Amino acid sequence: MSQNIYDRDEFFAGYAQLRRSQEGLAGAPEWPSLRALLPPLRRARVLDLGCGFGWFSRYAREEGARHVLGIELSEKMLERARSMGTDPAIEYRRADLEDVALPEGAFDLAFSSLALHYVVDLGGLLARVSRALAPGGSLVVSMEHPIFMAPSRPGWVAGNVWPLDGYCREGERVTDWFTKGVVKQHRMLGTTLNLMMRAGFRLAHLEEWAPTAAQIAAEPVLGKELERPMFMLISARKD
Amino acid sequence: MSQNIYDRDEFFAGYAQLRRSQEGLAGAPEWPSLRALLPPLRRARVLDLGCGFGWFSRYAREEGARHVLGIELSEKMLERARSMGTDPAIEYRRADLEDVALPEGAFDLAFSSLALHYVVDLGGLLARVSRALAPGGSLVVSMEHPIFMAPSRPGWVAGNVWPLDGYCREGERVTDWFTKGVVKQHRMLGTTLNLMMRAGFRLAHLEEWAPTAAQIAAEPVLGKELERPMFMLISARKD
Repeated sequence: MSQNIYDRDEFFAGYAQLRRSQEGLAGAPEWPSLRALLPPLRRARVLDLGCGFGWFSRYAREEGARHVLGIELSEKMLERARSMGTDPAIEYRRADLEDVALPEGAFDLAFSSLALHYVVDLGGLLARVSRALAPGGSLVVSMEHPIFMAPSRPGWVAGNVWPLDGYCREGERVTDWFTKGVVKQHRMLGTTLNLMMRAGFRLAHLEEWAPTAAQIAAEPVLGKELERPMFMLISARKD
Repeated sequence: MSQNIYDRDEFFAGYAQLRRSQEGLAGAPEWPSLRALLPPLRRARVLDLGCGFGWFSRYAREEGARHVLGIELSEKMLERARSMGTDPAIEYRRADLEDVALPEGAFDLAFSSLALHYVVDLGGLLARVSRALAPGGSLVVSMEHPIFMAPSRPGWVAGNVWPLDGYCREGERVTDWFTKGVVKQHRMLGTTLNLMMRAGFRLAHLEEWAPTAAQIAAEPVLGKELERPMFMLISARKD
């Protein structure tokens, strides 16, 4: 069973205040880049891995998706997702990505926003996701970038220097983020891509997200994101 | 015309003393990992981009390659390569990777060791390399890792911390390495992979090279390489 920080009161209270929690997709600066990697959603059957408050699940429906299955471990998040509107074509299901059972060949898109870096057995999940996709189906995900996750002391030094260490030492990273002891899984970028290819995906695009000049002009604090990438966005296709 | 640091006397004198220059492939710690990415060389037609002293060109012939074309900008390096033995099936040619003309569909493997990070128009080169390969042909390359190249002050701080900055600011990086003002081209890892895919390559493997436990035991100074990757090794296949 995975760690379920999202159901801790202190975590949920903090997380719910984030701009991306309040405003949804529009509040996430990487969303325009992630959206650009999506296949057409019209009539698509969509799997939303770690769906959280359901922002993407609802977006997919607005864009014409035929059916959305949102998977989420946190009860609090599912409750919030369900409170934001009912749609018979969206099914929210409580399950752990480490062992969720998925129907075979049932989806055209598997999407995941900032959830896969919590998963210990990423290879196992990707194999199940690959089987759950129809041939030609797409995988579009965002994850925390390993440069962001690796350091033993993740925080700026001397203003704008990111103190990287341990990049090639894979495994757990424990940080405090709204709550104590949040556990993430550090994998080198190559490891993640190789797991995808081994699961039968053909890589299509890798974007180490950085803010645009317009985004920095509108929100100068984003400028620091040019020093080291916080997220990576990946699209791939099942052969 | 590219910068040709390798023909500066001071650079060449220093470079020629490196273990990888003296011992060849066996003197490069990443060689076992790079070799593992190679397709069978028997009867292969091989293109060696930035062949230097010709270590790989000769290795390919020993492994049964039918023909090797080694491209190198440095006259001094070509001279040394030619002095190390003549083989009618190895052709060394002086040319700049920025604009070298290559025959179409003429090779089964395009190989490059630590040269592509000097190339400004990498997309243009990859397009020419893609056309130079027969269908199903392989691309196997090592490059300096962008984590290694990005920083404005590339050097350890506080013992084992790598002071990363500017990762998302692509473009020239100028360092001193045996000579003043060595110019390299910093590209995010995603940019390099996307250029390969756009040139018609299907990615097969990405390895952010790190020493093995046995290598560190034999040469403890290599241990620091676990903090941040110096090289990346990529294999891909032309569709």
